[in-house]
Amino acid sequence: MKKEPFVTKEQIEEIVKTYPTPFHLYDERGIRKNMKALRDAFAWNPGFREYFAVKATPNPYLMQILREYGCGCDCSSYTELMLSEAIGATGEDIMFSSNATPAEEFAYAAKLGATINLDDFTHIQFLEDTIGYIPKKISCRFNPGGLFQISNDIMDNPGDSKYGMTTEQLFEAFRILKAKGAEEFGIHAFLASNTVTNEYYPMLARVLFKLAVQLQKETGARISFINLSGGIGIPYTPDQEPNDIRVIGDGVRRVYEEVLVPAGMGDVAIYTELGRFMMGPYGCLVTKAVHEKHIYKEYIGCDACAVNLMRPAMYGAYHHITVAGKEHHVCDHKYDITGSLCENNDKFAIDRMLPKIEIGDYLIIHDTGAHGFSMGYNYNGKLKSAELLLKESGEVQLIRRAETPADYFATFDCFEIGKKLLGQDENCH
Amino acid sequence: MKKEPFVTKEQIEEIVKTYPTPFHLYDERGIRKNMKALRDAFAWNPGFREYFAVKATPNPYLMQILREYGCGCDCSSYTELMLSEAIGATGEDIMFSSNATPAEEFAYAAKLGATINLDDFTHIQFLEDTIGYIPKKISCRFNPGGLFQISNDIMDNPGDSKYGMTTEQLFEAFRILKAKGAEEFGIHAFLASNTVTNEYYPMLARVLFKLAVQLQKETGARISFINLSGGIGIPYTPDQEPNDIRVIGDGVRRVYEEVLVPAGMGDVAIYTELGRFMMGPYGCLVTKAVHEKHIYKEYIGCDACAVNLMRPAMYGAYHHITVAGKEHHVCDHKYDITGSLCENNDKFAIDRMLPKIEIGDYLIIHDTGAHGFSMGYNYNGKLKSAELLLKESGEVQLIRRAETPADYFATFDCFEIGKKLLGQDENCH
Repeated sequence: MKKEPFVTKEQIEEIVKTYPTPFHLYDERGIRKNMKALRDAFAWNPGFREYFAVKATPNPYLMQILREYGCGCDCSSYTELMLSEAIGATGEDIMFSSNATPAEEFAYAAKLGATINLDDFTHIQFLEDTIGYIPKKISCRFNPGGLFQISNDIMDNPGDSKYGMTTEQLFEAFRILKAKGAEEFGIHAFLASNTVTNEYYPMLARVLFKLAVQLQKETGARISFINLSGGIGIPYTPDQEPNDIRVIGDGVRRVYEEVLVPAGMGDVAIYTELGRFMMGPYGCLVTKAVHEKHIYKEYIGCDACAVNLMRPAMYGAYHHITVAGKEHHVCDHKYDITGSLCENNDKFAIDRMLPKIEIGDYLIIHDTGAHGFSMGYNYNGKLKSAELLLKESGEVQLIRRAETPADYFATFDCFEIGKKLLGQDENCH
Repeated sequence: MKKEPFVTKEQIEEIVKTYPTPFHLYDERGIRKNMKALRDAFAWNPGFREYFAVKATPNPYLMQILREYGCGCDCSSYTELMLSEAIGATGEDIMFSSNATPAEEFAYAAKLGATINLDDFTHIQFLEDTIGYIPKKISCRFNPGGLFQISNDIMDNPGDSKYGMTTEQLFEAFRILKAKGAEEFGIHAFLASNTVTNEYYPMLARVLFKLAVQLQKETGARISFINLSGGIGIPYTPDQEPNDIRVIGDGVRRVYEEVLVPAGMGDVAIYTELGRFMMGPYGCLVTKAVHEKHIYKEYIGCDACAVNLMRPAMYGAYHHITVAGKEHHVCDHKYDITGSLCENNDKFAIDRMLPKIEIGDYLIIHDTGAHGFSMGYNYNGKLKSAELLLKESGEVQLIRRAETPADYFATFDCFEIGKKLLGQDENCH
């Protein structure tokens, strides 16, 4: 599928008059359209709810847009809970799914009334010790171990993953939680990341639905929701077919009708915790070509770097690149597109065929809407960029300002040189 | 070699009364001892100077300790230049080695009088256009291309690296720079990272010294320094033999006397840009075991995560772990040591044999003094830790405070919900 950017060269030229490159730009129209498609695909399930995976794009402005459609928040840390609270999401609007969880995070999640998803068997006791009770509504995370067949040719290995409980632990956990007063149960499993197959969710659903039937039967625990978690991915490369969320929703419905309904569990709500699928394609990193280099290869150096988008450096991940205004030019030049870090893995693309790039051209790096800004670091003391929202009206809204050196040096405010860097002379706080 | 921590359980128990885990702890005694050993190893070269690679550990307090020994700063970004200026390092105290360099960084480096190391041939024109002149003292970075033999069994591939100029470009660059008024030249090359062989520097020196002789002869440019850059590594695993800096210094001296002295270049200064070697072993990440998990494997969850140390997640890097107070216990338990991120690669160790770990035990993760804190990110909204210095006196000094949620949310101060998160109500700045 041809990958088209959601912003034009003309729009970028207008934006940079106010906000210099590099910046992350999000597409309000795309976010809303996709959110509606997800809602529609699962409309057959009255209790359906998407809990947006806040870690993917922890920006309250964007979270608020999703919230207009009833979307909840999937949180896994203290600050993610704070973000949710700030947009008014509390109580059952929040799923708290964490691992190796600090006590204060359980306490805060409980205070907000979030639905807590226990990653481990030992967390039952830890949670009770921490907050003094077991909540009435509770969830447990499942790890089936071994290999999991996602589709005919894709397998993943949950047995190597640090998350979740074994089958035996899950049954035992439900019995214990019930004895301690829990009344409403959920199960959760995350078995694969970024799948681009319509088969993953239905296959996972079959595993979890069967398990749910057995759990309810054997433990007497009333299961009110099944959380399919994340894993629905996006096509980063042009040759990948995107997932069809309607087909996925239908696939889950068929398994639901086949497994849960006959077991008298036709009132179970389906939850999802999508992040990448909700935001990935609706964000891009806009950067300017500032240097060209001709040595053993041809390089274009741009003003963004792995600080703004780490996936290529960390995972060797492919992100499609469009040269703004050259969308229809022939891709007859082979480039490495690099950032300015003192790290040789700071390359957005290696041996990429692109149109001839001139200094000053804007490069649109696609699919940075999830795990883009949020995975940024400050290596080499490089500062993080702004985040901008391209509204449906065509206006642009600043939804995070760019960092300044004062932000970068903020935690040095406890000794003399640090204060000098910050231009401060108050006492340390 | 047995890896011994530089801090004891008793000391940690004292420190945590003031500073909760996790934190990075640095060893002043080790830093000073190693700095002296480096200085002594190259004392035969009157112009010798180490420029500390600021990116490794961008903390001005630590930079100041090195500066007591005449150490300069190797900078590659705007904020690294700011750090150097703050500790009083300006002019020839700074080497500015950057790639895909923004104009404002060249301008700042020039304003400070830093020695600029041009990464690329095109940077000659770019620098002149930016600052209006070519500095009298200038350096060029060399990339020999192809394969580079480091030792009998280690090769690296500089031809795949984005840095430096080809041989032809280097000769041409020297001619042009000389014509534009440069009077004092340097060459620089970085061909391999973290080598643990005493042979790397001497082999690199032979390549650069020969090239320098040829360059001076053919272009008439007066070469005043040769920068061997970084690459001297540290033994992360117990089975690695550490580099012997005295042997390395002697090895470089022999090549110097063999190649440079006979060419009448016995006045050339040797520069180094070590980061990992200067700080790596003299920092550790101290974390507490907070959860244990028994599923298909045995897991210990600790209160640090990849936010504090990304090398294991990003590179699969080995970092030795000592359980404080159990230094002499038998390592008869196999664990995965995990952080709490929603990333399955957030594991400090996989299948590591360690003594039995109890909840509450302190784990000392070794060799985090370089590329540890500095590569930290804020994924999952997790906050970065404090940095502490264990002084020679035994006192502990806070040299960076831990982040708070207000630091994490600082760049949201430009819209309503953001201000709510920050507890602010002023106007956006």
